[in-house]
Amino acid sequence: MVTIDRPFQTLSSRVVWSCPWYQVRQDDIAMPGGRNGVYHVIEKPDAVWIVPVTTDGQIVMVRQYRYTIDEWCWEVPAGSLKPGQTAEEAAHEELLEEAGGSARNLDYIGRFYLANGICNEAGHIFLATGVALGATHHEAAEVMEVHQFPIGQALEMARAGSITDGPSALALLLCADRLTALE
Amino acid sequence: MVTIDRPFQTLSSRVVWSCPWYQVRQDDIAMPGGRNGVYHVIEKPDAVWIVPVTTDGQIVMVRQYRYTIDEWCWEVPAGSLKPGQTAEEAAHEELLEEAGGSARNLDYIGRFYLANGICNEAGHIFLATGVALGATHHEAAEVMEVHQFPIGQALEMARAGSITDGPSALALLLCADRLTALE
Repeated sequence: MVTIDRPFQTLSSRVVWSCPWYQVRQDDIAMPGGRNGVYHVIEKPDAVWIVPVTTDGQIVMVRQYRYTIDEWCWEVPAGSLKPGQTAEEAAHEELLEEAGGSARNLDYIGRFYLANGICNEAGHIFLATGVALGATHHEAAEVMEVHQFPIGQALEMARAGSITDGPSALALLLCADRLTALE
Repeated sequence: MVTIDRPFQTLSSRVVWSCPWYQVRQDDIAMPGGRNGVYHVIEKPDAVWIVPVTTDGQIVMVRQYRYTIDEWCWEVPAGSLKPGQTAEEAAHEELLEEAGGSARNLDYIGRFYLANGICNEAGHIFLATGVALGATHHEAAEVMEVHQFPIGQALEMARAGSITDGPSALALLLCADRLTALE
């Protein structure tokens, strides 16, 4: 039933397309005012974004090639949760695989939705400190270089719009106060 | 040809699924090291996010129901570009439709990608000032209430993680210095 709290009621639901990374669910819905409609939801596992600070007080970022937009982008290490994995486990794994990083501490900063109009994916932001860097373990489709920046420079890049990956920019800006205290 | 600058080469490309809002393009690709693979790209029109400041110096935000996640979310007015529309035109239109707002000034703040691993959609952030509020024009599937907040409170909500819409939180944080100057 359509209610004040839940304005759309699901009348029927089925998956209409899928690939290994996500699927599209198509729902017939009842909306306020007695109108019916169709809502498509991209269902994708949650993902993590990690802001890593090394033992030398540097921020680790990756320069990653993104095929979807044919651009090289500045990002923090990130990746989707694997089945059965917690966000914290995913954060440690992605930090290690993408940047070769091992963190002494991992703090949970917050959660956000990437594109809540079309997709149910939530992103979880972590601040990793006391990070030591070693060998990376990039997957075949991951083309990236690992870089380090002073905290102030990384925050300035985020504020200046040089970090076009929305989630990475948001992760850095949400960590700003904590990072500034580490400078 | 796979090159240093363009690590993935498109071997073939076709649209495999579509709906009125976006479509999924499936590409066969050549990757570094002589490996081939498949990349799916969600192709969606760009969208705008507008941070509106009223003539009284209040920030306008909407409380919107998001079916994808069955949650009510704090957001700034936003929407996809219609065919042939510029980002600036879309910004004026969404501000008017969602919040009933007319801006005296519209400043372009920056651009970001919502989910660059799976989607090519870019978001464009605007700061609207001298905004006067009148009647809204919500579409059937848009269920939202219009609210106003002091600048400091809106920024605190963003920093505290109360704004779970990633793009809206990013828009507010990227406008932070300009907003603080208006307080």
